[in-house]
Amino acid sequence: MSSAKIVFQCCMSAKLLVEEGGSETTINKGLIAYVAFLKDCSDEVLHKIAETICTVRLISDSNDKLRSVIDSPCDLLIVPQFCLSGKLKGKCFQYHTAVPKVAAESLYSRLVKSCDTFLRSSATWLSKSCKLSYGTFGIRQILNIETNGPFTHVVELLGKKVRIKCNPTDKVGDLKKLIAAQTGTNWERIVLKKWYTIFKDHITLQDYEINDGMNLELYYQ
Amino acid sequence: MSSAKIVFQCCMSAKLLVEEGGSETTINKGLIAYVAFLKDCSDEVLHKIAETICTVRLISDSNDKLRSVIDSPCDLLIVPQFCLSGKLKGKCFQYHTAVPKVAAESLYSRLVKSCDTFLRSSATWLSKSCKLSYGTFGIRQILNIETNGPFTHVVELLGKKVRIKCNPTDKVGDLKKLIAAQTGTNWERIVLKKWYTIFKDHITLQDYEINDGMNLELYYQ
Repeated sequence: MSSAKIVFQCCMSAKLLVEEGGSETTINKGLIAYVAFLKDCSDEVLHKIAETICTVRLISDSNDKLRSVIDSPCDLLIVPQFCLSGKLKGKCFQYHTAVPKVAAESLYSRLVKSCDTFLRSSATWLSKSCKLSYGTFGIRQILNIETNGPFTHVVELLGKKVRIKCNPTDKVGDLKKLIAAQTGTNWERIVLKKWYTIFKDHITLQDYEINDGMNLELYYQ
Repeated sequence: MSSAKIVFQCCMSAKLLVEEGGSETTINKGLIAYVAFLKDCSDEVLHKIAETICTVRLISDSNDKLRSVIDSPCDLLIVPQFCLSGKLKGKCFQYHTAVPKVAAESLYSRLVKSCDTFLRSSATWLSKSCKLSYGTFGIRQILNIETNGPFTHVVELLGKKVRIKCNPTDKVGDLKKLIAAQTGTNWERIVLKKWYTIFKDHITLQDYEINDGMNLELYYQ
């Protein structure tokens, strides 16, 4: 279960169009974070995504030590980039794991706010007059960048994790009911997977060799 | 088992330093492919990586239809980007899945050659005087790009797949011997995994519910 895919690039400067045929936003030395929200994204993980963007150590300081946007401190440009959710099938990308547009727009604006709050909580970041810039959701992200090496990195962030107490003799259906009770969902909509195996309700956990501490993937039908 | 991680960005133009403090290479409208080789990369998959780069459909034509570098046709810039192999641990990236430097350098130069051969085999691509440019392995990739929307995509390519004929009553150890015979390796070095499960030699395939058509991950110890 993934909540977001982010590509990071370092830049010396960047210029992004924020209004079709209109105004631009610019940053100086800093980090560009291209973001796509995936199906398991929720409000609960937005703060985690913002924290990752602001604290990931990718910016070289004068001693070639890597620092984050917040402790470097430097500028940050957030670019909405739906297409990062793409999976290559043959020669084309498919986008089945992306959050629908309306939800993604709302997540995006809250992510920007969350990064803003996070950065402004740092006296170091504020003291250097650093800048947070961001693209406009839904328009073409016309972007120019100058780098001293883009130092490109990719991150796929996971969604929420729940820890469930159960017995080896419990059936998969029982586990689903326990998950439903903890997450406030309908157990019949839950699909439990591990790699390509979809677990069947009437089989016990021990028959599937589902042991303590094992991570399963959870989807909703 | 992954062989390479690639980030694609579309550009209107790009300029890359290819000699420290020295000359640059430029491309016009085209595709930038940032490439990192991962541990399972081998000569056999290099051709597949080159084909993916040259034929992936990411370039908009005048009717907003997506076309590849080879059939658009347009320029291609290959950028060695070791750091794409990074996995985020806490606030830092770790690079344990990257191919060692000497092997990566050799893979990189053969990838460039393979892309060159692939593109030159197309009369369409040749007829438009399109350009294949590439960065110098091991130096800082000082890059400037102008985009009409970078349209960033990420691909992680898998390594070689082998198909093995076996019986449900075969033990995992027997399957390893069959794989070893087909791949010319020592069966005792083979580790078979699926998600977090490492399959034990003395257990039968049916006990692990390993069925026909199921994909397992293979590692060498």
